[in-house]
Amino acid sequence: MRTLAQDVPKQLDREIEVSGWVHRIRELGQVNFVLLRDRSGLVQLVFNDKIDYTPETVLTVKGLVKANDKAPGGAEIHPTSVTVLSRADQNLPVQVNQDPDKYPLEVLFDNRFLSLRMPKLRAIFQLQSALLKYLSQFMHTEGFFEMKTSKLVGSGAEGGTGLFSVEYFENKVFLAQSPQLYKQGMISTGLERVFEISHAYRAEKHDTPRHINEYVSFDVEMAFIESEVDLMNFEARLLDFVFTQVGQNNQAELELWGATVPAPGAMLKAPVVGHDEAKDLITKITGKKVFEINPEGERALSDWALETHGVDLVFINDWPRKKRPFYTYPTADGTKTHSFDLIFRGLEITSGGRRINEYAMLLDNLPKFGMTLEGLGAYPTIFQYGCPPHGGFAIGVERLTQKILGLANVKEASPFPRDRKRIAP
Amino acid sequence: MRTLAQDVPKQLDREIEVSGWVHRIRELGQVNFVLLRDRSGLVQLVFNDKIDYTPETVLTVKGLVKANDKAPGGAEIHPTSVTVLSRADQNLPVQVNQDPDKYPLEVLFDNRFLSLRMPKLRAIFQLQSALLKYLSQFMHTEGFFEMKTSKLVGSGAEGGTGLFSVEYFENKVFLAQSPQLYKQGMISTGLERVFEISHAYRAEKHDTPRHINEYVSFDVEMAFIESEVDLMNFEARLLDFVFTQVGQNNQAELELWGATVPAPGAMLKAPVVGHDEAKDLITKITGKKVFEINPEGERALSDWALETHGVDLVFINDWPRKKRPFYTYPTADGTKTHSFDLIFRGLEITSGGRRINEYAMLLDNLPKFGMTLEGLGAYPTIFQYGCPPHGGFAIGVERLTQKILGLANVKEASPFPRDRKRIAP
Repeated sequence: MRTLAQDVPKQLDREIEVSGWVHRIRELGQVNFVLLRDRSGLVQLVFNDKIDYTPETVLTVKGLVKANDKAPGGAEIHPTSVTVLSRADQNLPVQVNQDPDKYPLEVLFDNRFLSLRMPKLRAIFQLQSALLKYLSQFMHTEGFFEMKTSKLVGSGAEGGTGLFSVEYFENKVFLAQSPQLYKQGMISTGLERVFEISHAYRAEKHDTPRHINEYVSFDVEMAFIESEVDLMNFEARLLDFVFTQVGQNNQAELELWGATVPAPGAMLKAPVVGHDEAKDLITKITGKKVFEINPEGERALSDWALETHGVDLVFINDWPRKKRPFYTYPTADGTKTHSFDLIFRGLEITSGGRRINEYAMLLDNLPKFGMTLEGLGAYPTIFQYGCPPHGGFAIGVERLTQKILGLANVKEASPFPRDRKRIAP
Repeated sequence: MRTLAQDVPKQLDREIEVSGWVHRIRELGQVNFVLLRDRSGLVQLVFNDKIDYTPETVLTVKGLVKANDKAPGGAEIHPTSVTVLSRADQNLPVQVNQDPDKYPLEVLFDNRFLSLRMPKLRAIFQLQSALLKYLSQFMHTEGFFEMKTSKLVGSGAEGGTGLFSVEYFENKVFLAQSPQLYKQGMISTGLERVFEISHAYRAEKHDTPRHINEYVSFDVEMAFIESEVDLMNFEARLLDFVFTQVGQNNQAELELWGATVPAPGAMLKAPVVGHDEAKDLITKITGKKVFEINPEGERALSDWALETHGVDLVFINDWPRKKRPFYTYPTADGTKTHSFDLIFRGLEITSGGRRINEYAMLLDNLPKFGMTLEGLGAYPTIFQYGCPPHGGFAIGVERLTQKILGLANVKEASPFPRDRKRIAP
């Protein structure tokens, strides 16, 4: 019966069995130490003999638990038997017990099966697992239906640029940029409230610390809303739940990165500023006239929100029509849209808004975006079949992970990131 | 403040507001009825005037709730005001209030945004949402980490046949058939226990009621197992949890299909038979000599399990080596493997097994499958870095949905199914 490393200190003076990877070896001559790593943490093994296991070798060890203030958790194991389950090679391209900062990002990505063993990098995906859990838990509790829609589509939701093409038998199809059209279709079937957590693809050629070509999109759509305000309120409650749970249950991962999440309730106080007001604010804060809300502006707004509202998240709504996709619902005067972004610590993590649900309005809007009905397949029929007012939003899961932990590059939040040059491992 | 259809009977003699789709119209002259449909069910509206809303038009209705034994839930609404939120066209290609059996499957798929409004078809995806919830809930409770791995890969996990290719910038990559290689990589990073729910792709040309070219795969991998028996025991506990939850919380969906799930605890009694024993059993039951375990044989085994063990699920283990993928761990005598299938009501819903975790054994195995180290990218390095004994399994989410509800074709369990000819909507 195996004991996890974290539970060893509870077994003082008992004979137990642990299994894991040789994390670090320290040989002093008479007394030699092995730190063994498992999914729960580290445990110290004490040997009198020379250590003949290489780092990363997998062992099962039986032994007696003894108190030792200097060992992790205040206990160590004096082995009575050791079984080697799998030997690791002598020279590994990455040293797992070193700080990841010692290696260039490209080396960490090239040797991903090793670098993910580093406790600090592994923590990224332990946290991400928790995010997936809490996001989905909140949605099910709120009565949303989880769906999985096709990623092989005939055209793009965002206007046809930036699509990867797939040879599909005798046809050519594309990898979906988002489940946008399907989630609108699904709410109109009467499910009313849906969400999906799936991969999405953007064939963007540029390489920045904010972009990734394959990412995980958390998508939400809900019917019978009045305006984007309902969506922002809902997202605030959702993220407040997620931040609260992470703060309670993922302290170990946060500490490894010196990170914190907004305190319980803080997210509910995130300010909402209109697009034009946001530009004025940025000008006022930075002293520079801005024409677009750029990354520097997004950082300035986050700082402003933290100072004035105690939370480093800010919603920007009332976006100009031409800056949003064709399906966005315009304001009554036709100049702006019922749409919003959410900025978290200087990075847009969400785009959302009310969608056009009237066929005539869609027809009127398409030429403004150089689009035609024909290019949209069955999508426009949704609005001929009776479609309630609705809207939704999407959160990039890697970006959310990145900003919680303070990762420099969003690719660090993908276990096997894909960019223009990287397609392996 | 909106009231859902299911809650109307609790509001007798009160003025309330409901919203939904016009499901059915019955005009008797003096008294006319509209059944309004929302995500929770149906509510009857009573009018004295002629009805001028077409089916599927979306309404918000205010009115007084009155008792009526003949109305759904024993209550109906006498409207005081009606707002039309969205008008539906006069002639819809599918009548939502009819039984789906009245239409060929292809018509239901061609008009998916309408046919999914049929309560019976919508129920498939309400049930599927519950399955996604309970599968994931069990895994998180058991301490597994949820991961999302890349679907753009350099080669296939199952030997290179049946892959869709993607134009990826200057390169050609493939859509992943399964997260097999990544999930082995992830357990070896020390996460030890992982799961993923993502799309998977098979470029199989044949068109059968059991196959689908894009499906949702629920994948599990765990380290430090002894053999496939640990995996079968774990899957039995997982499915027992899922069946129990569905039986408690999804009676409405089950009833629409006249379906039942195995009773709580039944799954834990599912028999395990060896591959050769299974063939003998099939011969004995059907009176026909079998050379392969074919669909007919799988049905016979399920019936046998139900009769003898009270549950229509049966594990088949000890598969011959050449019938399993290259990464499957062989038995000590080298003829068979530590692998298994799970048959549910005559259909394989799971394949799984212990994996090879020794580099030398992998090297020895590859030529037997006509494979080379080079074709596997970084995968073999996992076993040079120290990799514990491990294994896992996968459940096809559409197949599980299909067999719970008794759907004739697995494509019915995909909201937007893809087959060789179907790429829309």
